[in-house]
Amino acid sequence: MMSPEEIVTLRTRVRAVVEDLLPFESLLLQCQFAELMQKLEGVRERVRREGLWGLSLSRELGGHGLPLDGFAHLAEEMGRSPLGHYVFGCQAPEVGNIELVHHHGTSEQKQNILPLLVTGRARSCFAMTERNTSGANPTLLTTRARSDGAGWVIDGEKWFTTAADGAAFCIIMAVTDPGAPPHQRASLFLVPLPHPGLHFIRNISVMGHVGGGPFSHAELHFEGCRVGPEHLIGKIGDGFRLAQARLGHGRIHHCARWIGIAQRALDMMCERVTGRAISEVKTLSESDLVRSWIGEAAAGLTAARLFVQHTAKIIEEKGGQAARNEIAMIKFFVADVLSMTVDRALQTHGAAGVSDDFILAYFYREERAAHIYDGPDEVHKLSVAKSILKSKGGIDATRSGYDRSSPR
Amino acid sequence: MMSPEEIVTLRTRVRAVVEDLLPFESLLLQCQFAELMQKLEGVRERVRREGLWGLSLSRELGGHGLPLDGFAHLAEEMGRSPLGHYVFGCQAPEVGNIELVHHHGTSEQKQNILPLLVTGRARSCFAMTERNTSGANPTLLTTRARSDGAGWVIDGEKWFTTAADGAAFCIIMAVTDPGAPPHQRASLFLVPLPHPGLHFIRNISVMGHVGGGPFSHAELHFEGCRVGPEHLIGKIGDGFRLAQARLGHGRIHHCARWIGIAQRALDMMCERVTGRAISEVKTLSESDLVRSWIGEAAAGLTAARLFVQHTAKIIEEKGGQAARNEIAMIKFFVADVLSMTVDRALQTHGAAGVSDDFILAYFYREERAAHIYDGPDEVHKLSVAKSILKSKGGIDATRSGYDRSSPR
Amino acid sequence: MMSPEEIVTLRTRVRAVVEDLLPFESLLLQCQFAELMQKLEGVRERVRREGLWGLSLSRELGGHGLPLDGFAHLAEEMGRSPLGHYVFGCQAPEVGNIELVHHHGTSEQKQNILPLLVTGRARSCFAMTERNTSGANPTLLTTRARSDGAGWVIDGEKWFTTAADGAAFCIIMAVTDPGAPPHQRASLFLVPLPHPGLHFIRNISVMGHVGGGPFSHAELHFEGCRVGPEHLIGKIGDGFRLAQARLGHGRIHHCARWIGIAQRALDMMCERVTGRAISEVKTLSESDLVRSWIGEAAAGLTAARLFVQHTAKIIEEKGGQAARNEIAMIKFFVADVLSMTVDRALQTHGAAGVSDDFILAYFYREERAAHIYDGPDEVHKLSVAKSILKSKGGIDATRSGYDRSSPR
Amino acid sequence: MMSPEEIVTLRTRVRAVVEDLLPFESLLLQCQFAELMQKLEGVRERVRREGLWGLSLSRELGGHGLPLDGFAHLAEEMGRSPLGHYVFGCQAPEVGNIELVHHHGTSEQKQNILPLLVTGRARSCFAMTERNTSGANPTLLTTRARSDGAGWVIDGEKWFTTAADGAAFCIIMAVTDPGAPPHQRASLFLVPLPHPGLHFIRNISVMGHVGGGPFSHAELHFEGCRVGPEHLIGKIGDGFRLAQARLGHGRIHHCARWIGIAQRALDMMCERVTGRAISEVKTLSESDLVRSWIGEAAAGLTAARLFVQHTAKIIEEKGGQAARNEIAMIKFFVADVLSMTVDRALQTHGAAGVSDDFILAYFYREERAAHIYDGPDEVHKLSVAKSILKSKGGIDATRSGYDRSSPR
Repeated sequence: MMSPEEIVTLRTRVRAVVEDLLPFESLLLQCQFAELMQKLEGVRERVRREGLWGLSLSRELGGHGLPLDGFAHLAEEMGRSPLGHYVFGCQAPEVGNIELVHHHGTSEQKQNILPLLVTGRARSCFAMTERNTSGANPTLLTTRARSDGAGWVIDGEKWFTTAADGAAFCIIMAVTDPGAPPHQRASLFLVPLPHPGLHFIRNISVMGHVGGGPFSHAELHFEGCRVGPEHLIGKIGDGFRLAQARLGHGRIHHCARWIGIAQRALDMMCERVTGRAISEVKTLSESDLVRSWIGEAAAGLTAARLFVQHTAKIIEEKGGQAARNEIAMIKFFVADVLSMTVDRALQTHGAAGVSDDFILAYFYREERAAHIYDGPDEVHKLSVAKSILKSKGGIDATRSGYDRSSPR
Repeated sequence: MMSPEEIVTLRTRVRAVVEDLLPFESLLLQCQFAELMQKLEGVRERVRREGLWGLSLSRELGGHGLPLDGFAHLAEEMGRSPLGHYVFGCQAPEVGNIELVHHHGTSEQKQNILPLLVTGRARSCFAMTERNTSGANPTLLTTRARSDGAGWVIDGEKWFTTAADGAAFCIIMAVTDPGAPPHQRASLFLVPLPHPGLHFIRNISVMGHVGGGPFSHAELHFEGCRVGPEHLIGKIGDGFRLAQARLGHGRIHHCARWIGIAQRALDMMCERVTGRAISEVKTLSESDLVRSWIGEAAAGLTAARLFVQHTAKIIEEKGGQAARNEIAMIKFFVADVLSMTVDRALQTHGAAGVSDDFILAYFYREERAAHIYDGPDEVHKLSVAKSILKSKGGIDATRSGYDRSSPR
Repeated sequence: MMSPEEIVTLRTRVRAVVEDLLPFESLLLQCQFAELMQKLEGVRERVRREGLWGLSLSRELGGHGLPLDGFAHLAEEMGRSPLGHYVFGCQAPEVGNIELVHHHGTSEQKQNILPLLVTGRARSCFAMTERNTSGANPTLLTTRARSDGAGWVIDGEKWFTTAADGAAFCIIMAVTDPGAPPHQRASLFLVPLPHPGLHFIRNISVMGHVGGGPFSHAELHFEGCRVGPEHLIGKIGDGFRLAQARLGHGRIHHCARWIGIAQRALDMMCERVTGRAISEVKTLSESDLVRSWIGEAAAGLTAARLFVQHTAKIIEEKGGQAARNEIAMIKFFVADVLSMTVDRALQTHGAAGVSDDFILAYFYREERAAHIYDGPDEVHKLSVAKSILKSKGGIDATRSGYDRSSPR
Repeated sequence: MMSPEEIVTLRTRVRAVVEDLLPFESLLLQCQFAELMQKLEGVRERVRREGLWGLSLSRELGGHGLPLDGFAHLAEEMGRSPLGHYVFGCQAPEVGNIELVHHHGTSEQKQNILPLLVTGRARSCFAMTERNTSGANPTLLTTRARSDGAGWVIDGEKWFTTAADGAAFCIIMAVTDPGAPPHQRASLFLVPLPHPGLHFIRNISVMGHVGGGPFSHAELHFEGCRVGPEHLIGKIGDGFRLAQARLGHGRIHHCARWIGIAQRALDMMCERVTGRAISEVKTLSESDLVRSWIGEAAAGLTAARLFVQHTAKIIEEKGGQAARNEIAMIKFFVADVLSMTVDRALQTHGAAGVSDDFILAYFYREERAAHIYDGPDEVHKLSVAKSILKSKGGIDATRSGYDRSSPR
């Protein structure tokens, strides 16, 4: 187990790398992906050299074996730049895919594919979301995998498959048994790319850009796409359960990243208002309206951090199922802190705030999706409420989270 | 004066043109400006043929002589598409520039330049905003025009000069007398482009795109840029006053446009939720959370519309000075309705909402600036408060707006 | 028809009376109802003498025949004090009851009862709300009136019957035909008080006080309470329809009153911050946080006023049914402006704000109910949404309200 | 040190007492203070018998020596009822006064007065707030204590002196040296009541009630009120410093209490919506608008709890000065969660929510003051911002709170 002091040391080292990434952000803003990927490859080499690669991985996979709450501190630092997670080999959906193959893959998948992903020599994607069915209710999935005796034939359409562009592997979720209970209908398949019958349609233009490489979201069509038993991850019918299991860790990664973004936005806001004259004798930092924004942002950020740390600890100690409500709550709680902080930081920058001379406009548009991906905020609110309305209560002072007791 | 029925008829005709513009929006989203401008030129021809050109202009300028509140109805319809105002020859800053030259230009400017602008054969821009001085306090302006006996030599930097790219004329605000009372320091000059010493630096990348033509915001540098007395608009020292006078009409134009956008977003939200299944038997439209959003959006939109109509009528009847508070209030009131409505419409679209398959993501990112341009919302709130705190009150039942009376 | 100038004159006269009421507010705050009612009777006499009685009534009833939007201006002034409407004979539910009897009462009711109500010599109440059924869905009503051949026998419980304490008449809504279509199940009966089988249980304690006289909300029980055909108002089965018809005018009265309260709160906020030192050289009015609150309150108030005027005009010109959506929208829109403005005015008063040395704490607690009575805000949002989702759209520039047109 | 399990056991025992208090709340709502105090005395006896008295006190004072974060769990339970803290001998300002005398009192004060306060045999109050000077800036204090050689003569007015009614002792803050640096101007005096020249003017009516005994806020006037050196607490000029030192513990007590209130409100909301029919087949709990409120309340409460625990731990481990920003932030963060949760719980109760048949209306009106006492929210936001704008940053992963680092 790592001590708090070791985490601080690691955090400082991560921050140093992230600071050096900032000059490359303009390449992302200008969609110069070829040059960007080349620069990032250089930084990834440095990260490997400095022993900072795969900070989220377990020791068995050659990682640092950090507890989830410890990693969250580092993920915050990485999150300060949209390039951060990628250069540390910690980006979604890669880390989730690695865990999936590690825990549920076949021996062959573990032997041949896993090392490529873990070391960052190849990338993978995860094709679950569909355009015409609500991601919030995966039982509406329409992509079908029909048994043809020896294997399955997949037909259907996926979209918002992150990082499919240039990926060497794709994990596909498809309904194998439409007559089964809702959460046992689907299965997961891992196929190398390209694969017959799997068509890359486009990188979807999101907030004005199609993106590229790991910074993209693809539309994929499956037409008579044949997969064999060797492509299966887990067992038939395990699809939802395995996808669900990703969510806990994934949520912490995302939320810590959002906190990193919000913290950077707050830092930029403080810097801006200190330097911005609003009269011949005053700067914007003397406005108590602006100060109230800074105070509110700081409080929101602190609460968000504590909430994420708390949730990470429950996952670490008792598993994701025990933290189900917390995992749902940080989704919308932290996303709100993120949006509010970025929005106000942008506002204090005036016209510069909407320009690409600063990163704030990028955060503003790209992270709007935080309220949507992995299920819209509203779905998580409803799920928490459902759980509370069902619960019978009980006092648990060892857990600071929600405990409902007999009402009046 | 036009009857309400005539306005309805005009509005229906404007709507028909705007509906036909929608297919060209994808060219804007993909930044294919050459093809876009060509298509728009065709629509502009149709608009001229159908007698719908220059709906905001007075009869003397060959326009329809619509009252401002009447025009606001049409501007709503144009506003439904980001291409709307341009094809009708009603886009900012052109209409403001036309009014300026018409009322304050020299005879020669009126004779030679005005017709080009009025008919849309040439475009113009308005260079006021500077990067390092708060637009909210124009007395901080640093661009200087120093007299050299016969004329003036301008040095300084401007940015967010909308539509400078491809413009044939530029109106420049520069400080001619730094020692004068704050609001008499600056003057306006109208110069044809290109002009020696006036350097086009770049189209500023805004929310990910540099834009192009009328859909762009430029950075301009002035180095020893010489202008003569024939370039002056109004008198020396009139700069702020004339710029201020633009604001009333401009505000109505902007706010009506924002209402058009918000209305389209609400329409899209209604369409989306009606068609989106959230279970095997229910659509999103049956959610009373979504319905509460629709109810709130409708109320906000109705209030916004009434507020803009009310303000337009005061300007029309009593002039912009009489409507000073209202002009300030609609700025932030309507911008809030706009942001809230677009945000929720986007949210109900899920992943599709952040994609460019729909126009909502464009509105979300582009119209964030509504809270910033022409002075950030906060500045307008403060200015209204200042006016209220100063006023002595009085009851005026003929005016539904704010009236402060003797407090307890 | 009254000219705007005449409305202004009336408004000034109403204001003068209301100003003289303010000293009596402390009697209300201290629940000294006997003394309060005596003082108010004196003011009512003055109001009658000055010809300001019954400003909301039609000429046939001896009133001024003001259009509803004209009256709304006066109701704002009355609304500045919680005592205002009562001294002008314009309080709820009296004015609604008077209209009801006037339009639907029997000749005998009109001859014997109406004059007492119109002149304020007797008071009446309206018993509809029930504790255990959602007021938002009147089809759940449980109070039954069973026919016994000659008349009906009423059994059931009502609560929040405003002003039942000391009332001479009670209008009761009871289900006469539970098997009829939902909106034809109930009927209205007008009975003099006391009446056998009608038990006055208590004045309900609301926000800490049971109130008294017209300033109270009672719980009434009906046990074998017999009413004859002569007590019926309207026809059997007309109950919901007639209750619904009250809503339009009643909503305007309430909303105008709320605006009056909010305006007074804003006036008090301006007065307070101007006089409150926060350092040796500054007052609270120099804080731009406080100023942003004043700006937002002024904008909200102006929008609320315009919205109410607009709705009143539609009711006046086209009837309540045509204004259905507007009547629903002003309910929650104006209630939000009210709550926000009172809350911030209170906050700027510090500890004095929660004390009863100022009226703000009274407004804060008493007007919380604005979000609840006549149906909670949420129900109105849903009803507007339902109507919008159903509508087919169409452009109507003569009406500034919501118009939905063919979405993309 | 107490184990988490012991805290849970204590918490369960505290809850049991609080549950038995609920029937007496109606006496508070009806202002029957004589009967209320008698009932509460009985419960206090039980609390003493069960060894639950003075849970917030150190072992030296006969308390349990709980760490502050441990006590916060118990304070939540006490907070569920407005009567809770009093029956456990943990109410403000008593516990703060006890700490003050314990740490800074003279030997005689400690010997003669402290035991009376600690055991609850006598009550005390703390007279700091003044009507005409902003509590947020104590350097504006006007109450003066002028030296007369042997002692001091106090002149001035205090208000909102909580629990002065019936108190046996009063701690007074007065300016002893107006020429000193701002924070060294005032001193504290402890006098027994009654005392010559100290006039009890009134219990201030707050939100409709003057209250009584420990549930009251008094106005006190000092006219030539003489105090001797034996009345001093601490040293001359220590007044602000000692008052400031109370704030850390006091804030945790208040915030934990607010969380208890909010939790009870959420419990009541869940109970209400489960039982409330909105149609013949549905209850309010099936509305996803209501569910989104429950989800948001649960998230807010969890974040609030974590924030308070976090702050209590810093105070416990590093002292109040180290937690200065956190102490400021929980003030407004938790107060917002409180207000939002109580408001929505009330709203789901409909008319019953504003009635005194439920405790929600009491919480709604009484706890409005949470945004005001101990300095209005806004002042705390500004103070946090000031601190952040001044700080130079640095990474501290062992502390989840705000850490500012070098911005871009």
